[in-house]
Amino acid sequence: MRDVAIIGVGMTKWGELWDKSLRTIFTETALLALADAGVDKIDSMVVGCMSSGLFVGQEHLASLLADSLGRIPVPAARVESACSSGGLALRQGFMEVASGMSDIVLVGGVEKMTDVTGCEATFALGTAADQEYEGYHGLTFPGLYAMMAVDHMHRHGTTREQLALVAVKNHDNGSRNPLAQFPFKITVEGVLNSVLVADPLRILDCSPITDGAAAVVLAPAELARKMKKPAVRITGSGQATDTIALSSRRDLSWLESTHLAAAKALAMAGRKVQDIHLFEVHDCFTIAEIMVTEALGLVEKGRGGKAVEEGLTARGGRFPVNPSGGLKAKGHPVGATGVAQAVEIVKQLRGEAGDRQIKGARLGLAQNMGGTGGSSVVHVFEAD
Amino acid sequence: MRDVAIIGVGMTKWGELWDKSLRTIFTETALLALADAGVDKIDSMVVGCMSSGLFVGQEHLASLLADSLGRIPVPAARVESACSSGGLALRQGFMEVASGMSDIVLVGGVEKMTDVTGCEATFALGTAADQEYEGYHGLTFPGLYAMMAVDHMHRHGTTREQLALVAVKNHDNGSRNPLAQFPFKITVEGVLNSVLVADPLRILDCSPITDGAAAVVLAPAELARKMKKPAVRITGSGQATDTIALSSRRDLSWLESTHLAAAKALAMAGRKVQDIHLFEVHDCFTIAEIMVTEALGLVEKGRGGKAVEEGLTARGGRFPVNPSGGLKAKGHPVGATGVAQAVEIVKQLRGEAGDRQIKGARLGLAQNMGGTGGSSVVHVFEAD
Repeated sequence: MRDVAIIGVGMTKWGELWDKSLRTIFTETALLALADAGVDKIDSMVVGCMSSGLFVGQEHLASLLADSLGRIPVPAARVESACSSGGLALRQGFMEVASGMSDIVLVGGVEKMTDVTGCEATFALGTAADQEYEGYHGLTFPGLYAMMAVDHMHRHGTTREQLALVAVKNHDNGSRNPLAQFPFKITVEGVLNSVLVADPLRILDCSPITDGAAAVVLAPAELARKMKKPAVRITGSGQATDTIALSSRRDLSWLESTHLAAAKALAMAGRKVQDIHLFEVHDCFTIAEIMVTEALGLVEKGRGGKAVEEGLTARGGRFPVNPSGGLKAKGHPVGATGVAQAVEIVKQLRGEAGDRQIKGARLGLAQNMGGTGGSSVVHVFEAD
Repeated sequence: MRDVAIIGVGMTKWGELWDKSLRTIFTETALLALADAGVDKIDSMVVGCMSSGLFVGQEHLASLLADSLGRIPVPAARVESACSSGGLALRQGFMEVASGMSDIVLVGGVEKMTDVTGCEATFALGTAADQEYEGYHGLTFPGLYAMMAVDHMHRHGTTREQLALVAVKNHDNGSRNPLAQFPFKITVEGVLNSVLVADPLRILDCSPITDGAAAVVLAPAELARKMKKPAVRITGSGQATDTIALSSRRDLSWLESTHLAAAKALAMAGRKVQDIHLFEVHDCFTIAEIMVTEALGLVEKGRGGKAVEEGLTARGGRFPVNPSGGLKAKGHPVGATGVAQAVEIVKQLRGEAGDRQIKGARLGLAQNMGGTGGSSVVHVFEAD
């Protein structure tokens, strides 16, 4: 396998982008990444998108976007793994370059979620759960994560305030990210008094519905070293699945797929999780980030709530988690999220993260997750 | 890159499978492929599916199927490129094995299309066209291919009877395939008198709406030679895109993406198209097969109609096309079609194709296409 590096990244402002179509959002972002890489010609494209079918009535997406980007006849693949579609796109692109099949591969993620009603969006997102067993009973994701939260609180003593502190931390980070959908700070009191969605989760525990895209350009590491920007190598890639239905799990609040994907990615990179300087993780709900920090091994099982309270995962803490603002503040256009995590880590490892820069960061890890953890994708990045 | 081979194939009866869910259809088929390969443990899964979101309200599909198949926590990716999703899945699996990332990779394709109304199915299929430019004007695929047919007839003198002969040939082949949805013969007169769908295309020019799945198991060629069945190597893989919208094409009835994908796959295999003993191609409409034979270079541009009339593409002809019955008679569960083409070619190259066997076949080519050719995937297969 060849070594693979990221040579360019692009992201545009996320939010409710009613004046832009899916293809416009993607194309603007992809052009930024190509400009950042200083390349015009690509050999291939991989696009992560969860459900352009249900959100905008468009499949055949990768070809459409290659066309919109003016890059036909390059091969173009769309991949889907619910909310980890972006991470999966990065992994497929990584394998394509590693195999020697292609040199310059554009990896993008995109989702246009606000062109449908709230009910339709909730249905579309619900298709990441087991529709015949979970959806049938009326379950959608706030309810599923609420059950995970109740289990975590009951067994580990995690508090309502600790959940809120995840959102407060990520909004504090996001207030320093001009591309974030919600670039402002919130308070614990604000979270606790926000509208109840699914007990114990309130609206400020939930990541939003977002339109957005993110893109990176991959190249063999050897070629990457000749490019204009410092190369960031992808040194580890791990993916794992778990039961789709929460009811099939042995442990409601343990993310086994994240645990296994991280172990694989770290082993491939020859690193321990303690070596990593910053983390971008899948905080679709506040409880998710708490469970992820445990599954990654940043803290012992059950200690994720305490960790955020103690500042372990703050920007200045031992393990900075979600310096970008995470899904919570930056937004969560589901197919784009995994790619945006890579964009943030590359910016951090290049020292281009402005006033949210983690000083001296040389190693980063991204964890992207589908559903309640039915799939997880983890990548390890190292400054070259 | 490592050499890659197919070590097992599986397919179940296609049709209107109202008593089976998507996951059941896929799982039964995947188990057949694993049994054929003589392996139980897989390292990874890739699934091609066009629109489980619109057809059955389920995304996060690869994880769901890994779960149903009892193979969690293996990595599982779903890929989409409209009706070439199956071919794309094969290509992604091929790259995964070639890269060294995984050894045993299960590649499946599936679509469950009959659980919605005809209108809903037509809308779902229409999402392979450009929804903002073609769908907006009320165009669906019979209309798009009808325009291609009219153009071909006008410029090249292709006749209504020649279109019918494609369907007659493929049903003749399909009558020898017990897994086909429509395993019976039809006549030219029958086609010409069948219901008009979009002038000049009649219902017997169109491939059907189908539930079905197909699966193959990939392995490094070296390992494949130690398995119980004769290995069939994938020696070439090519993919190309074209404009999604027909209105953006320079030539309405020339499939440039197929032409380019075939050139790439054949170059990789070090073969000429004249070397190939049998072809499985994307005859979603009769006119499609005629255009494909031209784009592949089996005949000169404009001569595809004449070729079928002269028997060039018949089972006993110089270039047998669609011995399986093709999409027309075998059925067209869109995400499964590209994988089923590989299944047929493997059976033929192993000499297991029963009374539709092409004698002495050692090289095969599969061409799978999305939309009106917005994407094409071509693979070359060789008996080891």
